[in-house]
Amino acid sequence: MDQRLSLVTLGVNDLDRARDFYRALGWETGPSPEHIVFFQTGGMVVALWERMALAVDSGIEIDGEAEDMPGSGAAWGGKVLGLNVASAADVDEQLESAMAAGATILRPAGSRYWGGYSGVFTDLDGHVWEIAHNPYWSVTEDGQTLLGDGRG
Amino acid sequence: MDQRLSLVTLGVNDLDRARDFYRALGWETGPSPEHIVFFQTGGMVVALWERMALAVDSGIEIDGEAEDMPGSGAAWGGKVLGLNVASAADVDEQLESAMAAGATILRPAGSRYWGGYSGVFTDLDGHVWEIAHNPYWSVTEDGQTLLGDGRG
Repeated sequence: MDQRLSLVTLGVNDLDRARDFYRALGWETGPSPEHIVFFQTGGMVVALWERMALAVDSGIEIDGEAEDMPGSGAAWGGKVLGLNVASAADVDEQLESAMAAGATILRPAGSRYWGGYSGVFTDLDGHVWEIAHNPYWSVTEDGQTLLGDGRG
Repeated sequence: MDQRLSLVTLGVNDLDRARDFYRALGWETGPSPEHIVFFQTGGMVVALWERMALAVDSGIEIDGEAEDMPGSGAAWGGKVLGLNVASAADVDEQLESAMAAGATILRPAGSRYWGGYSGVFTDLDGHVWEIAHNPYWSVTEDGQTLLGDGRG
């Protein structure tokens, strides 16, 4: 798996309130689809998304107030780490290497409603990673992830 | 506050086991002090640290099995986001801007035992940020954070 981090998605309870907080810090939003907010942070992206949507999308089972992560017993803190790669084949290959290393798959690799292709795993301590190919974003040769035009 | 992310620290239950997992993914450890593992991930750093130490260091109160974050009611998921800045004065200034935006301070800015200077806040949804000056690391002009020689 590439030694990079492309995206950190923060689950939030109120998207407008969370966006306004980061704007008040001086952050500028990048091109974003509806119901999600992207910030270009150097060669990577920080995203805000409604917490429950992020959980469902990531294959995290919601069990009352706490969401315990498989294999770790730790609660889910509402964050997903993302690795963006150049192709769907790369997603498959890198998810397989994570499985071989002992990761637990939360959502197998497959096509996504937003036009990309991704799969989700957790590491041994319940930290959730999505490996994704987003055809609307760029991954530069030196591994930077750059936002596109608001799709995806 | 600078629109960047310098560091993501993952709290882990067994440091050696977690390090071996990421090594099995193909990741190579960078220069690291004892009891912590740093990975250079492009222009930022991913760190592994014992979960309880990370909580204590970040000013997160441990209450039995779940750690509820002030102002959000969400459980702590064992991650801390880091922003590295060029000076202690920058830490003070950027923490003040976070407070002005409505952040909750978990640990006021101050000198740290490892030789740096930092403070910790949570955003409105319980996501924890440390703003730090680490004299042993480099922050490049374009905002990349580069590991030093293993100190700090």
